[in-house]
Amino acid sequence: MSLPSDRFTGVLAAALTPQTADGTPDGKAMTAHCNWLLANGCDGLAILGTTGEANSFGLKERIRIIEGLVEAGVPGETLMPGTGSCAVSDAISLTKVAVNAGARGVLMLPPFYYKTPSDEGLFAHFSEVIQGVADDRLKIYLYHFPQMSATPISYNLIEMLIKAYPDTVVGMKDSSGVFDNMAGAAKNFDGFCVLAGADDLLLSLLEQGGGGCITACANVASSLAGQVYNGFHAGEDVTKANATLTQVRQVISSFPPGAPALKTLMARHCGNDDWLNMRPPLQNLSGEKASELFAAFDAIDYQMPAI
Amino acid sequence: MSLPSDRFTGVLAAALTPQTADGTPDGKAMTAHCNWLLANGCDGLAILGTTGEANSFGLKERIRIIEGLVEAGVPGETLMPGTGSCAVSDAISLTKVAVNAGARGVLMLPPFYYKTPSDEGLFAHFSEVIQGVADDRLKIYLYHFPQMSATPISYNLIEMLIKAYPDTVVGMKDSSGVFDNMAGAAKNFDGFCVLAGADDLLLSLLEQGGGGCITACANVASSLAGQVYNGFHAGEDVTKANATLTQVRQVISSFPPGAPALKTLMARHCGNDDWLNMRPPLQNLSGEKASELFAAFDAIDYQMPAI
Repeated sequence: MSLPSDRFTGVLAAALTPQTADGTPDGKAMTAHCNWLLANGCDGLAILGTTGEANSFGLKERIRIIEGLVEAGVPGETLMPGTGSCAVSDAISLTKVAVNAGARGVLMLPPFYYKTPSDEGLFAHFSEVIQGVADDRLKIYLYHFPQMSATPISYNLIEMLIKAYPDTVVGMKDSSGVFDNMAGAAKNFDGFCVLAGADDLLLSLLEQGGGGCITACANVASSLAGQVYNGFHAGEDVTKANATLTQVRQVISSFPPGAPALKTLMARHCGNDDWLNMRPPLQNLSGEKASELFAAFDAIDYQMPAI
Repeated sequence: MSLPSDRFTGVLAAALTPQTADGTPDGKAMTAHCNWLLANGCDGLAILGTTGEANSFGLKERIRIIEGLVEAGVPGETLMPGTGSCAVSDAISLTKVAVNAGARGVLMLPPFYYKTPSDEGLFAHFSEVIQGVADDRLKIYLYHFPQMSATPISYNLIEMLIKAYPDTVVGMKDSSGVFDNMAGAAKNFDGFCVLAGADDLLLSLLEQGGGGCITACANVASSLAGQVYNGFHAGEDVTKANATLTQVRQVISSFPPGAPALKTLMARHCGNDDWLNMRPPLQNLSGEKASELFAAFDAIDYQMPAI
């Protein structure tokens, strides 16, 4: 039940996007954050995902984020940028940039404006992207997050895509929170690399042949997720690390949509309030909410690694 | 209860976007379609809306569509382009283009990726757009379409925006289908120009002080909508035109999301199958569905105006 070696397995952080006061992505701060994550349990960086506020940036800004990280020395092979778009033309442009930057994979949202599209319509969209990119290096991880995209990735669609593009459509991030869906996909589709979108499901998914996780909480707790992932593969008892990781997840989950709470924790940890900058419609936590967050987070038996 | 004269009242078509076989917007065909609509009952053109597949085009493509129409002689003052975006930066860029093209208004979706954003977060987004465009000519019509955007425009948000930007936020297209919501907004907010997103609610909304409509069906039935709008203001009996318009609406509504059915009707009417081109995830009607559509549409006592 082992996955092909080219699959992007392990612990990936849905990396936050640090910004200056006017909302411009701060490449220097983001590079530092990515390097810190890679040094503390992360195998990869799922930049430009939901937690990274990808859809709040335009195409040019997203391109600059990807290229800027690689220029600053973050290895392309550690990256799984989000490159999905409602517009097939933008998805092609951004995916080409990611592939040329050496990204080991891309995380692809379906087009998410029109609701209840047919599987044939979604297949046509992904097909046009794959054929438009036209690059054998492209490895796509489908992004199933119905609560946010309102556009689920069905097993039927996965089957259609794997059949047509077996060397390109290689996995899925499942952020639905429905364990049976992710475990079922890992079991049903041979060689398909399923990554849990929730830290508390990582261990159970690994036991079912899953590839790892891509999570928001990994921004502040990648070392714990790394302990679970590596310990599992080493046959060690990871009960304690898993329990602690689950506690972190529970705390962050109680401050949806996650990114503001994580930025609040990073601002305190780095002693730098620039971390509080984010793009609307996301908004900073109120002072009261931030205090609640700190109290709940500090009650966990866990220390964030030093910057 | 009359609206200020600068409001964009009347019948606006949520204009379709003709495309070449590879999905490139066809400027020449779109110009012809827009001119035909203006000659047959339309007071304005809400290009780049849901029916116009706006979110299926990238920023550059959308800019080209707006500028191309004006270069081809479509008067800027007839345009209400959709310029909303999940990314505040793109919304600013596109809105500037629309204003500089002479658009009488813009139709603005809220950022629609993050679900259940706060009104404060949405207010911050619209504020950044308005301040980023920084142009007194800007007139925004908020786009309330919860079934598609999954991001409603609440009365509370309207109130916040009108208070902060009384000369800029001047109306709303309400595509919710909830008559009480649109009538309530027309009554509650003085001078606020509410446009119905559904043809069958046009007459009732006019009776409550509404400004008119922006509809998908106007692509094929703007002459009927024009008869209802103009007849109402002339104090004429518009019962028959309204009943026929409602029948058209009922037929198109039974083929969601509308754009494929409308393109199918236009292809037949123009004798040009290029009209069937559209971007995924939208898909053409099957042959069987197209036959059903033709049968239902042809049963209505209505002839589309000659091309």
